[in-house]
Amino acid sequence: MLNVGVIGYGYWGPNLVRNFVESAHTKVLGVADKTASRLKVVEARYPQIQTSTDAQALIANPQIDAIIVATPVSSHFDLAMEALKAGKHIFVEKPLASNSEQAEQLIEEAARRKLVVMVDHTFVYTGAVRKIHELVANGDLGQLYYYDSVRINLGLFQHDVSVLWDLAVHDLSILQYVLPGDPVAISATGVGHFTSKTENIAYLTLFFPDNLLAHIHVNWLAPVKVRRTLIGGSRRMVIYDDVESSEKIKVYDKGVQISNTPESVHQLLVSYRAGDMWAPRIETTEALAVEVKEFVDAIEAGRRPLTDGEAGWKVVRILEAATQSMALRGQVVEFAKGVAV
Amino acid sequence: MLNVGVIGYGYWGPNLVRNFVESAHTKVLGVADKTASRLKVVEARYPQIQTSTDAQALIANPQIDAIIVATPVSSHFDLAMEALKAGKHIFVEKPLASNSEQAEQLIEEAARRKLVVMVDHTFVYTGAVRKIHELVANGDLGQLYYYDSVRINLGLFQHDVSVLWDLAVHDLSILQYVLPGDPVAISATGVGHFTSKTENIAYLTLFFPDNLLAHIHVNWLAPVKVRRTLIGGSRRMVIYDDVESSEKIKVYDKGVQISNTPESVHQLLVSYRAGDMWAPRIETTEALAVEVKEFVDAIEAGRRPLTDGEAGWKVVRILEAATQSMALRGQVVEFAKGVAV
Amino acid sequence: MLNVGVIGYGYWGPNLVRNFVESAHTKVLGVADKTASRLKVVEARYPQIQTSTDAQALIANPQIDAIIVATPVSSHFDLAMEALKAGKHIFVEKPLASNSEQAEQLIEEAARRKLVVMVDHTFVYTGAVRKIHELVANGDLGQLYYYDSVRINLGLFQHDVSVLWDLAVHDLSILQYVLPGDPVAISATGVGHFTSKTENIAYLTLFFPDNLLAHIHVNWLAPVKVRRTLIGGSRRMVIYDDVESSEKIKVYDKGVQISNTPESVHQLLVSYRAGDMWAPRIETTEALAVEVKEFVDAIEAGRRPLTDGEAGWKVVRILEAATQSMALRGQVVEFAKGVAV
Amino acid sequence: MLNVGVIGYGYWGPNLVRNFVESAHTKVLGVADKTASRLKVVEARYPQIQTSTDAQALIANPQIDAIIVATPVSSHFDLAMEALKAGKHIFVEKPLASNSEQAEQLIEEAARRKLVVMVDHTFVYTGAVRKIHELVANGDLGQLYYYDSVRINLGLFQHDVSVLWDLAVHDLSILQYVLPGDPVAISATGVGHFTSKTENIAYLTLFFPDNLLAHIHVNWLAPVKVRRTLIGGSRRMVIYDDVESSEKIKVYDKGVQISNTPESVHQLLVSYRAGDMWAPRIETTEALAVEVKEFVDAIEAGRRPLTDGEAGWKVVRILEAATQSMALRGQVVEFAKGVAV
Repeated sequence: MLNVGVIGYGYWGPNLVRNFVESAHTKVLGVADKTASRLKVVEARYPQIQTSTDAQALIANPQIDAIIVATPVSSHFDLAMEALKAGKHIFVEKPLASNSEQAEQLIEEAARRKLVVMVDHTFVYTGAVRKIHELVANGDLGQLYYYDSVRINLGLFQHDVSVLWDLAVHDLSILQYVLPGDPVAISATGVGHFTSKTENIAYLTLFFPDNLLAHIHVNWLAPVKVRRTLIGGSRRMVIYDDVESSEKIKVYDKGVQISNTPESVHQLLVSYRAGDMWAPRIETTEALAVEVKEFVDAIEAGRRPLTDGEAGWKVVRILEAATQSMALRGQVVEFAKGVAV
Repeated sequence: MLNVGVIGYGYWGPNLVRNFVESAHTKVLGVADKTASRLKVVEARYPQIQTSTDAQALIANPQIDAIIVATPVSSHFDLAMEALKAGKHIFVEKPLASNSEQAEQLIEEAARRKLVVMVDHTFVYTGAVRKIHELVANGDLGQLYYYDSVRINLGLFQHDVSVLWDLAVHDLSILQYVLPGDPVAISATGVGHFTSKTENIAYLTLFFPDNLLAHIHVNWLAPVKVRRTLIGGSRRMVIYDDVESSEKIKVYDKGVQISNTPESVHQLLVSYRAGDMWAPRIETTEALAVEVKEFVDAIEAGRRPLTDGEAGWKVVRILEAATQSMALRGQVVEFAKGVAV
Repeated sequence: MLNVGVIGYGYWGPNLVRNFVESAHTKVLGVADKTASRLKVVEARYPQIQTSTDAQALIANPQIDAIIVATPVSSHFDLAMEALKAGKHIFVEKPLASNSEQAEQLIEEAARRKLVVMVDHTFVYTGAVRKIHELVANGDLGQLYYYDSVRINLGLFQHDVSVLWDLAVHDLSILQYVLPGDPVAISATGVGHFTSKTENIAYLTLFFPDNLLAHIHVNWLAPVKVRRTLIGGSRRMVIYDDVESSEKIKVYDKGVQISNTPESVHQLLVSYRAGDMWAPRIETTEALAVEVKEFVDAIEAGRRPLTDGEAGWKVVRILEAATQSMALRGQVVEFAKGVAV
Repeated sequence: MLNVGVIGYGYWGPNLVRNFVESAHTKVLGVADKTASRLKVVEARYPQIQTSTDAQALIANPQIDAIIVATPVSSHFDLAMEALKAGKHIFVEKPLASNSEQAEQLIEEAARRKLVVMVDHTFVYTGAVRKIHELVANGDLGQLYYYDSVRINLGLFQHDVSVLWDLAVHDLSILQYVLPGDPVAISATGVGHFTSKTENIAYLTLFFPDNLLAHIHVNWLAPVKVRRTLIGGSRRMVIYDDVESSEKIKVYDKGVQISNTPESVHQLLVSYRAGDMWAPRIETTEALAVEVKEFVDAIEAGRRPLTDGEAGWKVVRILEAATQSMALRGQVVEFAKGVAV
């Protein structure tokens, strides 16, 4: 039984607490939040959980094995580092930290102390994304040509981060999991309509080796909610529509064949192929439940979890580069040594 | 009665011929095409029309008042210039020319000879786009925040031009018509999976004054056909879905209000507004029929048509800049003197 | 403060308990259920609520003012009657009883004792149905021509009642609320594929005065979930799609005009009208919260609630007639004295 | 080469003429229509075709082998019978005749003269319906439970027939082709809002052996166009949506299993199965082109076509029974000797 303490009971915290409470392998000993009214909600729902406005006390509690950090991004590093220094495993809300240097320090501190760092890249644990991973890994899609995601809706505007750090982080965590290799360069554009510091619309192009292009469109100011990803490969193409309640993933047996016969030196011979469409059954277990299990398993086995510190670092590294490119209206930023640590 | 000659009876030519035949104000005297089998099709459908593989002879025909050019882009300039020099008005398939210098020469030649140059920016004449123009012009959307268009499908790969010059030209002609002002800079990314010269996926960001951002996503390699534009304004937002057979335009009474009260110096106070949605009835007259009328009217009145040479020039100028930016993986290209001639 | 006791904590009970707990006007003193494991769930969530397997004890509790019955249909009558005889107001899950005679007895008993009978016709309290009611009542739709509802999905098969008594009851409660007048006759067809007694597919036609026709299609064996109602009127038509997360109601300014001019004695002159579509904003308060308020208000004011015993009686009466017609493969059943009590 | 004459150039005639013109196996010698303006259209499009207002002369033309009847239903019988008596094969627009007796006489006359009677049940020749036929015939759906079709839109109101004879005839021809066996009884309801004789909304329930139920909903007064058929089987379920431009057919690997174990005598044990969804590629050849080929092949081989006189007779027989049931507000009409001739 893993004893955990949760810091932050805002938007996402309640889902974390519920899942750590319902898991047969974990027990939530305490919840800390600066806002007293949020703690009242915890108390009403879970009389057995101790609440406090003092995060430090929770971290210091010797009965607690792991700390869950679900606070605003700017406080992730301090809380997570403190927890590591107190000998606790950490599970941190996405993005892992405010910059890549912080992420690096967390990784190093945890390695030194043989503690587990896990970042909450939730989508990686959904049935839909796991199915896409499987399709790509099996070669069902053939050589990958592009990855295109649209993640837009009205709100919720964040105060301290741009739409990139709020929404694009989901896409970056997904494509890191399903695409082979790391991006070599990035170009991003965006605009903030209400404050110049926090863009509410952004477009990212990620350049991968072998002509693979990924593009992400995030927007807090759209009249409808769209969560749609297209993945094009030489053998098949996929549409992943997370707004659909069923058939979230559709696999199209469609494509083109290009002939470069001698006669067609000056002319492409393109032939189109259109076959069946197939929507595989998707596992519907709640992602957070799978994630809690992964955290516990990683701690027990002394191994890295699927979404470990490095995964969190890479996403933050790309967000930094995107922010940099965006300030220069799209100028490409190269990942000289790759995005790998 | 305006006597016209049509050069090119490939993919789009049949629609042009049909509309110029059915108009009460025009008469098609001749059709020229290099491919004899295409002329057979014309003869079967329209025994009254003279056909020929000789475009020059058609241009030289003294009975003809105007020449319609519906050939591949690379031949637009030579044919159109020849027609102008023979004293004919010209109606040219989009894009107007292969580069902005050619477009400029056509405009100058026509001005010198007091002839009409019209470019076939078809979408500008659809009921849907005219309705959007009206909504923007009336101030129904308030201050414009963004314009986002997705235009993707499987095929048809072009041999001589990239997806930009094939599909994005539609979006550029639409946004030129509906948005106030011209873009000041552009950043574009894209990739060609089959030949490095002709990109089959491209993403464009256009920077306008006053924080207005336009983005265009075009792709020849998508498993489904999408034709969807979102326009966000301070008062209302619009979705224009051209794949829908009815309710192509939806107007959402949605938005955000941002307060910057003294207390919220460090914190945005965002409030969301969600009201009715409204799908105005759209005029369904075929765009080409409206266009033929505009061409005839402009010639009779000795005035410029709605989609004149300058409109064609601007689109070509942006395509050039986009191509340049795309080669530099997104580096911004500024329109020093604006996009105006 | 109204003190309530809830009997039945199965599929719907948890929603009732949650809403009666969260209301500022009611307090849940006890929950009874025959299954001990269900009571454990109550205890975990609401340590303050007393639980028991003994419904009679709950009914007898003198501190309790009202009893909520959320058990299988076959037990509604006994529990509700017992509660009335103990002087409690009753709030009964739909359908009110197993037959119209039982419903009548409940109404009479409550009238005698000046107690409130309310039936849980949930949809009547949704923003969408209230908006439709308003559109009809205002005359926005003109004269009503038809009401057509499809309510299908896979499962949940009920053991003791047919799909009619499970799903069609929703439509009957809605149409009773929004349509003017009562049906004069009914024809129904259906089939049970697994047991002949409980049909899993059924079709109902309800004949109203003035050529208004209502039709309901319910099915437990459909591959997709559909919740779609069309209402046609002489001035406008409505589509109510409850599966949509937004724009649940669309109002179409469409219709036909029929001229019977002398020349057209032998021929109808039909002209079609197609105008705008409009999706009004829908109130999103949870229906059950509105319903709890209505129950409390009715008790305090000593008045009948919107969905009173008569409303429950009418729905049961129509279900009885539908069951009778279905056994005779569609033979019409007339409501000699109307459906009114 | 089969020489044909076409009578009727109204709504559907142009499609028939175009397909018989474009077929390599047929030649259209003449077209007859009572309205001179319609013949002008023919002449403009097909200068090689002789036109006339005299259908009798066309029928009498000795060069003509087959007569295509595309006139209003009330004239089908006279024209078709005349053509048969003149020794011509006949291809008749749906429905074959105004009543089953007429249909019978046509069948007998053709049999006597060894001529082919074909009825234009167009949908039977579409790729989508042929795919459904294949799925059913292969047993892919298992035992069939139900067939449910909705075919609604705004207009076109017919003058001489109800919506049943206009729209339901499509569904009846499809279900005759794809379902095993014939219906044994029918119940129908409907209403005419503008004239009592011609219903503009109708609902049909067809009872088949083995608890298979078919239901058809047709409506000329709906705000949107719906063409959707659900077919439920013990192994799989199908949705056929003809309004979709792609993925018209979706096959769901979904269903229920019912256990009747001793313990569950008083209780059904239902388990649900939800697997993949699959949208097979559909052949896109125009149905009428396939149909013309079938007509020619049947004549050459001296065999019956797929949609022969009997197929036409059955549909008319069911329409008669439906009309009869509808007048009695749903009273069941049994097909004593089956629907077979």
